[in-house]
Amino acid sequence: MIDVSPEFPVDESAIRIPYDQLKDFMTSVFKAVELPDADAEGVATAMADGDLLGKDSHGCIRVPMYVKRIKGGSINRTPEIRTIKQTPAMALVDGDNAMGHLVARYSMDLAMDMAAKSGIAWIGLQHSNHAGAAAVYASMALERDQIGIIACVGSANHAAPYGGSDILVGTNPIAVAIPAAEEPPVVIDMATTNSSLGKIMVKAMHGEPMPEGWVIDAMGEAITDSAEADNGILTHIGGAKGFGLSMVIGFLAGTLNGAAFGSDVIHIGEDPHSVTNTGQFIMAIDVGHFIDPGLFKGNVDRISREMTGSAKLPGVSEIRMPGTNSWRIYQDRKANGIPITKPLLQRLNAAADEVGVTGL
Amino acid sequence: MIDVSPEFPVDESAIRIPYDQLKDFMTSVFKAVELPDADAEGVATAMADGDLLGKDSHGCIRVPMYVKRIKGGSINRTPEIRTIKQTPAMALVDGDNAMGHLVARYSMDLAMDMAAKSGIAWIGLQHSNHAGAAAVYASMALERDQIGIIACVGSANHAAPYGGSDILVGTNPIAVAIPAAEEPPVVIDMATTNSSLGKIMVKAMHGEPMPEGWVIDAMGEAITDSAEADNGILTHIGGAKGFGLSMVIGFLAGTLNGAAFGSDVIHIGEDPHSVTNTGQFIMAIDVGHFIDPGLFKGNVDRISREMTGSAKLPGVSEIRMPGTNSWRIYQDRKANGIPITKPLLQRLNAAADEVGVTGL
Repeated sequence: MIDVSPEFPVDESAIRIPYDQLKDFMTSVFKAVELPDADAEGVATAMADGDLLGKDSHGCIRVPMYVKRIKGGSINRTPEIRTIKQTPAMALVDGDNAMGHLVARYSMDLAMDMAAKSGIAWIGLQHSNHAGAAAVYASMALERDQIGIIACVGSANHAAPYGGSDILVGTNPIAVAIPAAEEPPVVIDMATTNSSLGKIMVKAMHGEPMPEGWVIDAMGEAITDSAEADNGILTHIGGAKGFGLSMVIGFLAGTLNGAAFGSDVIHIGEDPHSVTNTGQFIMAIDVGHFIDPGLFKGNVDRISREMTGSAKLPGVSEIRMPGTNSWRIYQDRKANGIPITKPLLQRLNAAADEVGVTGL
Repeated sequence: MIDVSPEFPVDESAIRIPYDQLKDFMTSVFKAVELPDADAEGVATAMADGDLLGKDSHGCIRVPMYVKRIKGGSINRTPEIRTIKQTPAMALVDGDNAMGHLVARYSMDLAMDMAAKSGIAWIGLQHSNHAGAAAVYASMALERDQIGIIACVGSANHAAPYGGSDILVGTNPIAVAIPAAEEPPVVIDMATTNSSLGKIMVKAMHGEPMPEGWVIDAMGEAITDSAEADNGILTHIGGAKGFGLSMVIGFLAGTLNGAAFGSDVIHIGEDPHSVTNTGQFIMAIDVGHFIDPGLFKGNVDRISREMTGSAKLPGVSEIRMPGTNSWRIYQDRKANGIPITKPLLQRLNAAADEVGVTGL
């Protein structure tokens, strides 16, 4: 029921590519489409970090889509990311239509520096773009004994308002990373829909069906063929509750920052030419401003152990805290490389071929 | 499927009590158990405001429980609520074991004043108590063109970790209120479980069954008898996702503030004698620090109308934004009084009798 479950189907024939090799490969691809060297490496690093964390739907799998968008003219190759408003508590960052990974990293660095002084910081992002795996940025806070938070307006609408069938709502994900002492950090990275689009994309690439409940059609009937997901409606967790969470994230990450939300969201998978004005918000919370960090992390450990030590429901082999699965995958991939399945390898090498760099 | 649905079953024989009368009644009850006059009125006001918003599970229905706790010695009748740490961005508030309504109102007032200067403010609460309906505090921000947020460690554990059966997790609710211009404000006020305990309490009081999926037993089987809910496990929205949200809220609202979370949470319904050290966090976000408030609220209106104007799934009569149902109930109850059903009236009058004040 809840065993370790990488998003990719277990595939023994997947090759293992070391982190540095995957990162260098992606760096060369982004250089080939004329991102400046440091930016190419910055994007590639954030993407490879996503793969390391097991976020297979938001790492290197996105190379072809990003290449298409950069070549399609929808991304600013030479942006000037800047802080356009700042107080001791908040800032507004204009991403100048850079790759979202660069805007998110810039903003999380800013948030952590501000939180070190003020205890907390909230950064609104405008003119950003799809930033890959949200957990990558939230987790940056951990080594500073801070709590990291990021929430995003989804970069394509795939869901409807609760009870409706018009495609007006993104998966609007949120990630939070909380430091622990000896236990794995507590990390959530979740769409407010029952599945992210990325997870469905991975299933479609491997010809796997979706569980019932992820996607419905305009008559409210379940769709389970992952190749047909684009014609369906992603459902929200808890029905009206997940829809409510998604609306709140959309207003806070998008509307508040003057960024897109609702009908003005561009579908990044279908439209490689239009500028998106993607919005996110990012927070850093400095634990030491509230409580001794050692005491805090010890309590996170204690509570984590209480949870994982609970009696189990029938058929459950293990109870895990949020983020533990990802943390274990991280250890494995750091040591043994990132598994690249055959369909994924073909896609990556086709993209490399297209821009004239050596494949994996 | 999603018609207006007050938490109470529709009961034509319910009497309607005007807001002021209900508030004055509750004030007299709390004075009778020796809360200072201003505090008695403060608690009664927050509770009556919860009833006005349709939060029947978190308003006057709680009078008997609060009376029991105050008489049981678990509440400080003469607290000194104080800010023990403050920066321009955050504060830590010690509630000195006051009634939670007083600590939450104090903290939201502080948050709004700080946000007016700094753009945002985050307040951690320790030594607080159950504060009634979360939406009451989040909504205080609306008239200042601010966004209000509150999240709480649930005041009793009724859920288990995902896949487990030990009762270690509260309903850990969150409320967010976002101002609009002509449309109703967008407000969520939700447990991270499929049902709050309060909603089940209301069903039990009226002998109504629960829908399948709200509560399971230690074998994972559904419990639908609301009177048996206390022997069951509340389920999280979206399974592991809701559990993850609940953990994050617990660490941010409880552990970070040195407040209870996990096995050290006191069950307020069962134990009227123990001090709880309840934790909450409260945020205020000043819209004008990010964007022109008129522009923001106009965009909230536009997006709200896009959502409610969507095509409907079969069987759906109306699509509503989060908070619209509550907003309509508020208009009705403000004009026509708060409906008090017969079982509720009996409870309230029994409590009044016990403390020697005139009943409703």
